[in-house]
Amino acid sequence: MARVSQEHLDARRRQILDGAARCFARNGFHATSMQDVLKEAGLSAGAVYRYFRSKEELIRAIAEDVFGTVRAAFESAARETPPPLPDVVLGRVLGQVFLGPQAMADLDREGFPRLVLQVWAETLRDEELAATLRRGYEVVRDAWTTLVQQYQRSGLMRDDVPADHVARTLVAAVQGFIAQQALFGESGIEVLEDGLRGLMSVPGGNIG
Amino acid sequence: MARVSQEHLDARRRQILDGAARCFARNGFHATSMQDVLKEAGLSAGAVYRYFRSKEELIRAIAEDVFGTVRAAFESAARETPPPLPDVVLGRVLGQVFLGPQAMADLDREGFPRLVLQVWAETLRDEELAATLRRGYEVVRDAWTTLVQQYQRSGLMRDDVPADHVARTLVAAVQGFIAQQALFGESGIEVLEDGLRGLMSVPGGNIG
Repeated sequence: MARVSQEHLDARRRQILDGAARCFARNGFHATSMQDVLKEAGLSAGAVYRYFRSKEELIRAIAEDVFGTVRAAFESAARETPPPLPDVVLGRVLGQVFLGPQAMADLDREGFPRLVLQVWAETLRDEELAATLRRGYEVVRDAWTTLVQQYQRSGLMRDDVPADHVARTLVAAVQGFIAQQALFGESGIEVLEDGLRGLMSVPGGNIG
Repeated sequence: MARVSQEHLDARRRQILDGAARCFARNGFHATSMQDVLKEAGLSAGAVYRYFRSKEELIRAIAEDVFGTVRAAFESAARETPPPLPDVVLGRVLGQVFLGPQAMADLDREGFPRLVLQVWAETLRDEELAATLRRGYEVVRDAWTTLVQQYQRSGLMRDDVPADHVARTLVAAVQGFIAQQALFGESGIEVLEDGLRGLMSVPGGNIG
């Protein structure tokens, strides 16, 4: 058997995950079979099962890919001094997820949010997927917390509120934005960027 | 047949909806049967079918009840001059939903968010439920937009961002907060209140 380069293996893995993501987004996780995924990816059962043995493994791998992208985008934002403000960070991270090289680029614009809703509902039944999501959530929450602490240390944000609560609120805004897109149709990231800018302009909010 | 007071009819309806909400939150929408709902509510099939003919009708009625509560809480906030700031409005509205007289009071603390996630996933399959959710979303979005316009007119918020975008961001924060609770466990409303206070203290955010 010919030796196969890592690059080739990675590209093949990507092809399978993209196909699975399209299937799940279009028909839902439950209505999709491994057979559908093979067909969508244009690969044989042998080629696919070498990488993933079940739909559950596929959906976990998709979730981990997305979190990897998000983590990288945050790490790059956290390296800047002074740290970019929340609206800027959020625009960059979402831009990476939706448009970056690791993005689910083949999904139509409503595909990604619909996929996320499928993943969320599925965590209520799948402990391992729930654990994957929890780890990803901790990564994002910690990344925001580090940024918020930097805002607070540099006097950009009042420091009498727990950094973790601000971090969770920012994560919530993104999660809710994704839910809105899945439920009510696609819209641009500028909705959230404008929204944060508006909120940031309200003087102080009960400082006292 | 004896005449039955409206009060009695309302209480009976409430009893059925509360039972259904508990079932859906506990076992998911798909794994719940009308039989489970009868048993949970402690009523006969005749008593229940007089009000609701299907699970789909039940879940729509639950969603409309929640939106009714949210709408009432916003209407009371909008009557105040000057309008209370976002963190205060949000605390009050969520307090009403979780603790008010119309609340799904019988659900355990994780029950309500899990129910919401079930409803969201179900909208991808149920057009009528999707329409109910869309109407409810419009109500909440319009209520926030009105408040944001008041902040902008009274100089509390920069007016060069669309009020609707700020409104959608605030709705998103609540939606995401509910998702976090369903996925990662219960936490208090103060997370979101603190988070908004923190964001509101960041000076201006790219005013320019």
